[in-house]
Amino acid sequence: MPELRKDPIVGRWVIIATERARRPGNFVDATFHNTDPKDCPFCHDKDSKEIYALRDPKDPQAPWKVRVVESGTPLFSGTGSVHRRGHGLYDMCDSFGAHEVVIETPEHIANMADLSVEQIKNVFETYSLRINHHKKNPDFQYALAYKNYGKAAGSRLIGHARSQIMATPVNPIRVKDKISGAKKYYEYHERCLFCDIIRQEKNSGERVVVETQHFLAVTPFASRFPFEVWVLPKVHACDFAEGVAGYENDLAKMMKELLLRIKIGMDDPAYNYVIQTAPFRLENSGGLKYRTIEQDYHWHMEILPRISRVAGFEKGTGFYICPIPPENTARFLREVKI
Amino acid sequence: MPELRKDPIVGRWVIIATERARRPGNFVDATFHNTDPKDCPFCHDKDSKEIYALRDPKDPQAPWKVRVVESGTPLFSGTGSVHRRGHGLYDMCDSFGAHEVVIETPEHIANMADLSVEQIKNVFETYSLRINHHKKNPDFQYALAYKNYGKAAGSRLIGHARSQIMATPVNPIRVKDKISGAKKYYEYHERCLFCDIIRQEKNSGERVVVETQHFLAVTPFASRFPFEVWVLPKVHACDFAEGVAGYENDLAKMMKELLLRIKIGMDDPAYNYVIQTAPFRLENSGGLKYRTIEQDYHWHMEILPRISRVAGFEKGTGFYICPIPPENTARFLREVKI
Repeated sequence: MPELRKDPIVGRWVIIATERARRPGNFVDATFHNTDPKDCPFCHDKDSKEIYALRDPKDPQAPWKVRVVESGTPLFSGTGSVHRRGHGLYDMCDSFGAHEVVIETPEHIANMADLSVEQIKNVFETYSLRINHHKKNPDFQYALAYKNYGKAAGSRLIGHARSQIMATPVNPIRVKDKISGAKKYYEYHERCLFCDIIRQEKNSGERVVVETQHFLAVTPFASRFPFEVWVLPKVHACDFAEGVAGYENDLAKMMKELLLRIKIGMDDPAYNYVIQTAPFRLENSGGLKYRTIEQDYHWHMEILPRISRVAGFEKGTGFYICPIPPENTARFLREVKI
Repeated sequence: MPELRKDPIVGRWVIIATERARRPGNFVDATFHNTDPKDCPFCHDKDSKEIYALRDPKDPQAPWKVRVVESGTPLFSGTGSVHRRGHGLYDMCDSFGAHEVVIETPEHIANMADLSVEQIKNVFETYSLRINHHKKNPDFQYALAYKNYGKAAGSRLIGHARSQIMATPVNPIRVKDKISGAKKYYEYHERCLFCDIIRQEKNSGERVVVETQHFLAVTPFASRFPFEVWVLPKVHACDFAEGVAGYENDLAKMMKELLLRIKIGMDDPAYNYVIQTAPFRLENSGGLKYRTIEQDYHWHMEILPRISRVAGFEKGTGFYICPIPPENTARFLREVKI
């Protein structure tokens, strides 16, 4: 299995593939391709290890609606242990965790934008179920549900909608940074930063893309990329699975409309989305019940169309250069005819 | 001029282009092209505003060796002021700063790897000179010297070697994170983290790519990308301009060898490099003399060949997945025949 290694300067963990390591002469990865419905590995999958399948409870013999399988090229494995250790001044551990693929539909449909609201709801319910499952493992600190759609977003097999769930034995640096920033705001104002963002954005309206009863989609004030969109739940909750419970249908409606606006308005671009839930935390050291950071964090999603590239200035500073103001992209997406 | 806006969650500044903003329908930037020596804008530049030119002091009528001009599409401007202000809960300021292009040679040569050691030395001396110039401005907090080589690295005009210098009115998040990590290590160990990394890497040798009298080039233990290389000065100094003084020739030798090994071994890939110097700091509030963080930071360079793409997992967690162990890429680069 791959190794996890920690950058000693900024504390970022990286995954170093060791077993399936490609030779240096063969470092450019050109293995992506369009799948054909006739031999699509997700339409006709018989080899993968099934972890979960959503079926009609009234008709358990009917085909599955959403299916979760083990990744064929896993970056995290459930066997072994975390095995944290040093290597001189460096820190490392084993990639003990989970790496699951969520096949979002039995049909050969590529973009989540083209699934029904009902089917998108099934996918989000599956995320909740799997994240809650991983929460029970005391060695797991985080679970990320995310999607790579299209070649530029890092997908290798194009054609059949799916997403991935990773459970990690360490806390990701990006989540740590968000928690830490939101905590500072909370300590100063005694209000949730995200709840305040929702209030201000609803009030001005200039960066709002879609609003449903329980969710608000905005292009962020300090967008890193053109057409970056955040989906914010209006009801405060730090944990995705707890926070989305009861609102899955509304979130599915939001995602269907948002992804359609992006698909139609931008000519079907590649995109990633990531669910930014709080890390798992033990309520007390003796028990197995988990709680997350209640007041000072607020789960949300980021949707990132992949139409630009970063250069040296971004790499050296962490700055980003966004060539279109988010107010313009929000208006453009609002005006797309769907 | 563009606006600087701050992400309220993680504190990252972004540059939002407002004036020259492209329309949303025209968001894919396809303006890069190969320059022809006959009409290369860097061979025959007469329009740009010259900021500095390095000439032979004995023959001031001879052509320049290195030339610094104002960027034609500046992201930072020296007119106006920082003008920090709020926008509801958000923070923003004007893009008061500098954006300079360093034309590295009068000849139409694309890759710094193909310049002479003497010419590379001239380029690094020019960086020092310009960074020291920007240090005098009390409104500037940082200066980044960096290079985009090749289309995948974000260069728009291919064919004539150049680099860029940005002076910024805010402290970049990436530098803040590095300073903060190095400080924690220093507080615990009372030793510089980078000096310790140099000791450990020299001792093991397995990640060393090139070593000169005063510099060590290694593939980092927790490499984010395949073939990422750091250049570390053996003499401790937090500030690039102060630290490199007297060692410019040795750094030029290091860079020539390193960039040649990358060019030949990897078939001339696109790459970025960034100089990670300490931020400017006022020694005392009354004076105009600057000092940087003396003990707990150590300037260095990152060289980042751009041969892979990041996907949703990296976007959501800040994790990176490196498909080749850095020990393998270091050995590969050491064995390239140059």
